[in-house]
Amino acid sequence: MPPTDPAPATFTHSDFPKNAWYAAAWDTEVNRRLLPRTICGRHLVLYRRTDEVCVALENACWHRLLPLSQGRLDGDDVVCGYHGLAYNPQGRCVYMPSQQTINPAACVRSYPVFEKHRFVWVWTGDPAQADPGKIPDLHWNQDPEWAGDGETIHVHCNYKLVLDNLMDLTHETFVHGSSLGHREIAEAPFHVTHGPNHATVTRWMHNVNPPPFWSMQLGRSVPCDRWQIITFEAPSTISIDVGVAPIGTGAPQGDRSQGVNGRVLNTVTPETDTSCHYFWAFVRNYKLQDQSLTTRLREGVHHVFSEDELILEAQQRAMNENYGRTFYNLNIDAGAMWARRLIDERIEAERTWAQEAKEYAAR
Amino acid sequence: MPPTDPAPATFTHSDFPKNAWYAAAWDTEVNRRLLPRTICGRHLVLYRRTDEVCVALENACWHRLLPLSQGRLDGDDVVCGYHGLAYNPQGRCVYMPSQQTINPAACVRSYPVFEKHRFVWVWTGDPAQADPGKIPDLHWNQDPEWAGDGETIHVHCNYKLVLDNLMDLTHETFVHGSSLGHREIAEAPFHVTHGPNHATVTRWMHNVNPPPFWSMQLGRSVPCDRWQIITFEAPSTISIDVGVAPIGTGAPQGDRSQGVNGRVLNTVTPETDTSCHYFWAFVRNYKLQDQSLTTRLREGVHHVFSEDELILEAQQRAMNENYGRTFYNLNIDAGAMWARRLIDERIEAERTWAQEAKEYAAR
Amino acid sequence: MPPTDPAPATFTHSDFPKNAWYAAAWDTEVNRRLLPRTICGRHLVLYRRTDEVCVALENACWHRLLPLSQGRLDGDDVVCGYHGLAYNPQGRCVYMPSQQTINPAACVRSYPVFEKHRFVWVWTGDPAQADPGKIPDLHWNQDPEWAGDGETIHVHCNYKLVLDNLMDLTHETFVHGSSLGHREIAEAPFHVTHGPNHATVTRWMHNVNPPPFWSMQLGRSVPCDRWQIITFEAPSTISIDVGVAPIGTGAPQGDRSQGVNGRVLNTVTPETDTSCHYFWAFVRNYKLQDQSLTTRLREGVHHVFSEDELILEAQQRAMNENYGRTFYNLNIDAGAMWARRLIDERIEAERTWAQEAKEYAAR
Repeated sequence: MPPTDPAPATFTHSDFPKNAWYAAAWDTEVNRRLLPRTICGRHLVLYRRTDEVCVALENACWHRLLPLSQGRLDGDDVVCGYHGLAYNPQGRCVYMPSQQTINPAACVRSYPVFEKHRFVWVWTGDPAQADPGKIPDLHWNQDPEWAGDGETIHVHCNYKLVLDNLMDLTHETFVHGSSLGHREIAEAPFHVTHGPNHATVTRWMHNVNPPPFWSMQLGRSVPCDRWQIITFEAPSTISIDVGVAPIGTGAPQGDRSQGVNGRVLNTVTPETDTSCHYFWAFVRNYKLQDQSLTTRLREGVHHVFSEDELILEAQQRAMNENYGRTFYNLNIDAGAMWARRLIDERIEAERTWAQEAKEYAAR
Repeated sequence: MPPTDPAPATFTHSDFPKNAWYAAAWDTEVNRRLLPRTICGRHLVLYRRTDEVCVALENACWHRLLPLSQGRLDGDDVVCGYHGLAYNPQGRCVYMPSQQTINPAACVRSYPVFEKHRFVWVWTGDPAQADPGKIPDLHWNQDPEWAGDGETIHVHCNYKLVLDNLMDLTHETFVHGSSLGHREIAEAPFHVTHGPNHATVTRWMHNVNPPPFWSMQLGRSVPCDRWQIITFEAPSTISIDVGVAPIGTGAPQGDRSQGVNGRVLNTVTPETDTSCHYFWAFVRNYKLQDQSLTTRLREGVHHVFSEDELILEAQQRAMNENYGRTFYNLNIDAGAMWARRLIDERIEAERTWAQEAKEYAAR
Repeated sequence: MPPTDPAPATFTHSDFPKNAWYAAAWDTEVNRRLLPRTICGRHLVLYRRTDEVCVALENACWHRLLPLSQGRLDGDDVVCGYHGLAYNPQGRCVYMPSQQTINPAACVRSYPVFEKHRFVWVWTGDPAQADPGKIPDLHWNQDPEWAGDGETIHVHCNYKLVLDNLMDLTHETFVHGSSLGHREIAEAPFHVTHGPNHATVTRWMHNVNPPPFWSMQLGRSVPCDRWQIITFEAPSTISIDVGVAPIGTGAPQGDRSQGVNGRVLNTVTPETDTSCHYFWAFVRNYKLQDQSLTTRLREGVHHVFSEDELILEAQQRAMNENYGRTFYNLNIDAGAMWARRLIDERIEAERTWAQEAKEYAAR
């Protein structure tokens, strides 16, 4: 029987590094209900043990492939909904019906999981390399000096299209004209730096009238300096330092005390070649106790991102219809090109490593 | 133009014997309306002649392929709804518009049909071998000593998954916990026998409290002996002898007179590689005239089978997503493994026969 | 990423000539809103310049492939809805964000367009050969001596199936029994002639009772001569001269003054291999000012064509399910066979020409 979804087949040419932590869910999404979620082409079931620790298992019973997420929890174990096979959090089968001896090979794959910065991260590569120290930095999401909230969006496009979108905010002028748009963004100069694991795009717009969103945050509409400092961390996390401050109050020199400052936190996890889970939060370092503001910001950003979603999904359909066509790049794509280069380097390193391991084994 | 449905292509590796009678419909489904139905990847149109005899023709006009089921009956002939070509019950074209001479090659394939045990059976292989004596035994469905009713379910899974499901009733404990479930089923020993065309799984549960369904049939809740005797007849028919009797009344020794006895009659017909028609009936040999009981039993079994349907369709999706993964087997799968082995032997015999015929022709 | 729609891949074996004018839209469909439309597998965006001239551009931004139809018009230019790249009516990029120099290679393909006979025609082949004189003759659609209206139908079938349908009206007897059907059509003799670019099927039914549609047009039900003169113009336009006149009033000899005469104008444009845009109009040369009649005729023909649509889409599905099966032909198919032959000759000529050009280039 052929796959009904073409994605898994194309994953033979994986376009993401495997040795990485990917956000699989918000902390609140994982609980005592079995959560099925596909990340990086792997079908997982996520849950919490009775001691609250998160577990990620392959979501297909060893016996007949039924998704374990259609079963139920029995303490820390998952019980299959078809014939009752039970698996412990390590994925080992601990019960088979009508037989005393359990086949020692009976197990489902278990994935390294770590909870950090309000996300549940899963490592999809070699478990021996799953060092929690490698989890991308989104600490603002759980820092007492910052407040905010976010959500999970399921987008029908390749994860890299979301990264492209975030690495260049020129599009705000054209996509988000009524909220964040600013003719100045498309015209302001920007500066790109990069390291082995990071790429940063810095854009300052000096002496501009802030767009509606920022006027509202500042509480008045005065000429401002506006900044967007976009930091990519391989393979798929982007943190954006954004804000405005009245001109002459020293923001470009480092004193942001008279302005307003936010962080758009983003991490994007491939689902299939043409879909992804996009986790985002918007946090701020002012009016920390104002839950009404938190809600309004979450809803406002939700609206802005739904405008992006329309564009991204149309772009993916256009790529499918124009299969094989390459993208052309503009100057504004410098940041996105660095992000893609860092991703490609990791994929290439994994390929080389796999090739050398194979040759070593063949000696 | 490519097929929109992947199934026909995969049927080049047929996974069912062709020389077999397959149930195409319940007797009441075939009448003077043209019924389109696909069995074993063959698109058929079914109807009754004026003398009530059933006819099965290829459902594609010789001329332009329009499904004949979109036309109309004219006496015993089918008239195409596009240009009016008419075909007799043997599939020969007997009218063409605007021309006197009918191309003698103009015909659609006609299939052997036989009505028996309330089902309309179609033979999909070599017509010369279509012996009605080979129709699977479901005589309880039309026996004056038994009463009951059933229905047709269209299931989005390979037909063998339904057979697997029926050959091992351990799953009742986990899938049908509220009606038929019984921890004892998953633990009771069972016994498998087999012949050239049959496999039988026998399971007795001694001195158990019957589950809700059987208590209701018996009219009281007393310790019982419960039995499940599952008989597979190749390629895809399963009759299950089920019942309970109060302990000590001799049921295990052969006297079931103090108990209640039913038969679950099942025959499953492939539609595509990933879908099938599942015909079932539940018949009993008590309270034969109680139509209210017949209706309640049909509705009750319908509910039980809809629980299976959810599992079977999820299993098929999981197989598609995990394309190429093989199944592992437990002890409980002994009956299903025999059923699959008998099917495979028939498929293999047909392949060998076709190969020898080809070599003979090439001499 | 693989295409989600199988059509583009199969277009490598194009089954339509490229060097031809295809109707892309009714004149009223193209205006100052961006109209996305796929013809001959090419994704286009259509609009009018401020001076009303029609423009057809490739509907995928050079930069990131976003459909330009999701952007907006700025004077005569299209502005992409993602990053604001602007293209002029020739397809040349005239604005890029954040950069002064525009890459001279940045453009989208522009297609020759010509408005004639109330349709907007697009040339899909070599622009140098796009002679408006080659636009098919549908002049009755804009002739002061004729009145009528029509519409666009999107049909899920290959465009040739619509042509087959129109080249033989025998099907009226079986498909349109309640309006146009006439046992006599299926029996009346017909006559086929052909030229290098045309094929004509002429059928006269003498001394027949007109069917309901024509009785109503004539205003009475008297024995009539009825005619259907079908003219195909390659690659995909069919004009049908239809009418009835009371017997003995000279219609077969050329005097139609006592009868009623209409023209069914049809042009069919491939979209994908299994879908097309079918543009039709019904015009008449009587009661020219009767808008109520125009509306009733348009609605009546709409109903008739919706009966054809059901047949055509079922036929396409049957072709998909019986992939590789060829059609058989009857005498009534003589006109359709000539139409297909003329199409095939053009496709073959284009192939030969492309092959010779390649060999010449390789010298």
